[in-house]
Amino acid sequence: MSIDSTTLSASNAVSLIRQGNLTVEQYAKALLSRIAQRDPIVHAWAYIDPEYVLDQARKLDRVPIEHRGPLHGIPVAIKDIALTKDMPTRYNSDIYRSSHSSSVDAACVITLRAAGALLLGKTHTTEFAATTDGGPCVNPLNIGHTPGGSSSGSAAAVADFQAPIALGTQTGGSIVRPASYTGIYGFKPTWGAISREGLAQYSISCDTPGFFARTIEDLELLTDVYRFEDVAQPEQATEFQIQGARVGFIKTHVWDLAPAGPGLKEVWEKAKNLLIEHGAIVEEIDWPDDDFNKLTDWHWAIINGEGRSAFHGHYTLDKQNLSQFLVDQVENNLNFSREDLLDALDRSARLRPIWDRFSERFEVILTPSAPDIAPEGTHFTGDARFCGPWTLLHVPCLNLPGISGGKSLPIGLTLVSGRYRDRHVLKTGKIIGDIFESTKANS
Amino acid sequence: MSIDSTTLSASNAVSLIRQGNLTVEQYAKALLSRIAQRDPIVHAWAYIDPEYVLDQARKLDRVPIEHRGPLHGIPVAIKDIALTKDMPTRYNSDIYRSSHSSSVDAACVITLRAAGALLLGKTHTTEFAATTDGGPCVNPLNIGHTPGGSSSGSAAAVADFQAPIALGTQTGGSIVRPASYTGIYGFKPTWGAISREGLAQYSISCDTPGFFARTIEDLELLTDVYRFEDVAQPEQATEFQIQGARVGFIKTHVWDLAPAGPGLKEVWEKAKNLLIEHGAIVEEIDWPDDDFNKLTDWHWAIINGEGRSAFHGHYTLDKQNLSQFLVDQVENNLNFSREDLLDALDRSARLRPIWDRFSERFEVILTPSAPDIAPEGTHFTGDARFCGPWTLLHVPCLNLPGISGGKSLPIGLTLVSGRYRDRHVLKTGKIIGDIFESTKANS
Repeated sequence: MSIDSTTLSASNAVSLIRQGNLTVEQYAKALLSRIAQRDPIVHAWAYIDPEYVLDQARKLDRVPIEHRGPLHGIPVAIKDIALTKDMPTRYNSDIYRSSHSSSVDAACVITLRAAGALLLGKTHTTEFAATTDGGPCVNPLNIGHTPGGSSSGSAAAVADFQAPIALGTQTGGSIVRPASYTGIYGFKPTWGAISREGLAQYSISCDTPGFFARTIEDLELLTDVYRFEDVAQPEQATEFQIQGARVGFIKTHVWDLAPAGPGLKEVWEKAKNLLIEHGAIVEEIDWPDDDFNKLTDWHWAIINGEGRSAFHGHYTLDKQNLSQFLVDQVENNLNFSREDLLDALDRSARLRPIWDRFSERFEVILTPSAPDIAPEGTHFTGDARFCGPWTLLHVPCLNLPGISGGKSLPIGLTLVSGRYRDRHVLKTGKIIGDIFESTKANS
Repeated sequence: MSIDSTTLSASNAVSLIRQGNLTVEQYAKALLSRIAQRDPIVHAWAYIDPEYVLDQARKLDRVPIEHRGPLHGIPVAIKDIALTKDMPTRYNSDIYRSSHSSSVDAACVITLRAAGALLLGKTHTTEFAATTDGGPCVNPLNIGHTPGGSSSGSAAAVADFQAPIALGTQTGGSIVRPASYTGIYGFKPTWGAISREGLAQYSISCDTPGFFARTIEDLELLTDVYRFEDVAQPEQATEFQIQGARVGFIKTHVWDLAPAGPGLKEVWEKAKNLLIEHGAIVEEIDWPDDDFNKLTDWHWAIINGEGRSAFHGHYTLDKQNLSQFLVDQVENNLNFSREDLLDALDRSARLRPIWDRFSERFEVILTPSAPDIAPEGTHFTGDARFCGPWTLLHVPCLNLPGISGGKSLPIGLTLVSGRYRDRHVLKTGKIIGDIFESTKANS
């Protein structure tokens, strides 16, 4: 065999393994070799034990064909805020630096393992997936830049061909933003579509597990594994084609707030022109209600209000080893009242069905993933404000990797829709993503 | 010392330990002796290791005074769906019968331990705190009856003087109902006031950790430990007295639906008369909006909709060992659509601020805890429908133990309020609870 299995998509690897053209051990060895070479530079991993991985791989190779699951032998990188029964979970927290394995898998990890996935290791996160202090993980496309956060290592591992797919979580923009910065697909499903049991908690109203991959097929494979079911679809969506499709481009209030940088402005125009060239009916749209402009403030009030109880346990255990940002939440040093929290929860809840209904007017809606390319340095994982409103609206978000702009680093755009239109987002995202990716091949 | 420490409240035990009049070891020994005597009958415990408990107790006795927390030496019973680093967590699930310790504490357990609590053991729950199949735990007041569920063992342990306080959770009525059936205080705080990290997940929108105790002071001690903060209080509430207080009695639509049994009807009238005798201005009230009548259906749609993802991991791991009720949720055999779920989530969210504002018209609002005394047998843990609407409204609920009705088993009433009025509920509950309890002394 002369295939370089590190560049395989999970879907292709599934086929090769099923056909007997690739063993799980071969696949694991190739990735471990890539990791050994690249980890001293990229630092995607918080924990990995190559011997254990190979041991698991060999066990998987011995599983009879009829007992193999839909992800049989597929290596998955796990963000280090998800409990794993055979690997420690350390949350990039000084409190838990020496933690051992928990003997418990997070619910979403149970599913991966039961489907036959090979858990490769735990990936770097910012502290409790809440802070924006980055490092040690860097952007594999340019190590002078951040890979984004908080799912830094998961994004970097997939972008750098160290794993085909990775588990991440998003409370603000922790899947979409790193996917944009590292040029891969990042998928934050509808809030509630995947259990959050066994994951670190920050904002119970916003925390959402999701995935990184290099192809949409791989994300669709995962939605099958997790038994995703959409709301009933409008007839038009069953056979999506770009010709004649209504595509909304929504800058949102964050465009001026962040503000949008030159890279984003360029990609935005390119994307519109590209879709028009392909026959789409492109329209710049705005929020359907003025209250949507407040989602940024409400998101901030909610994560601060909910962070008070979320980090309280760690605070009582070892306040000294908790970063000031988290201490401030528990002590409510920003002085959010309970009324602020309730007002933000109730008023954002009111907007969810409004958005769902509005979104049905378009077959595709695109919005920025981040203000620009990944910022320089690793001290700051970047501005999540383009993502926050969507996270709070609970809608599926799919980062489509950037249209080539001739830059050293990519910028993605996010495909959004209404709640429980996850499969719709992936199906339409495949068409749009292919159009975007075709510009890379030509550039 | 001749005190029977098993009957102490946690607050009194804190004082005795602080003053050096009771050691943690003495206290633990007394409770372990009670447990040894009673557990073969009551079956409150899913896991307890007396030697380990005594070892921990002796360690706590050696902690210097200046390093002792607010719950120093207080034994706490933990519902067996909360992860504990030194005890197994088995969820009363055939899948996890032989699970070992997780080496991780649920967030709410971290706080208890950091405050100096002595974790006594894990208490019986229904399967994943979701089913209503009871046993082996029985009602300590009459072993031919259920203690309620899903927090069966936590309620039974506290009611039976096997622990002064216990951790429970409520998704429908799993704290309030068993508290009513066993004649103790059961407190379900505002949703979100305590982190749910490390707890089994059923309905992310409804699951709420809370506590059982035999006194309100003990619940207030816990709200201090968890740093509860109320919304700003109306002036009147700062000095609550029953004379002249406006007390609303709300039967809700469940009164006819359940329907209310003879025991409840008797307690309902007794409670009204009693409060009128004490000078309260008592008023029978109704929901402020017709949509509140739909909360029962919406609660059912939500737990079914959210149960689909909650139990998916266990289902993929070992469907054969999951009870049919949970399989039905994952497979959606009751055919709830995503639209049903979203409609229920959105419309119940709309009612929350309406209830909050309405509730401020009354200093106290009382509502049924359960349709009657605990049902006979342990096969069914009882009807939770009186509690479901409040759980979904996210408001604090406090079961006040029953007014003596000369029956063999008690019936409680629930004090409810608006969100983040937890301290208010406990403060007013203390006055009302004392009035109710005084009838026992006289009967």
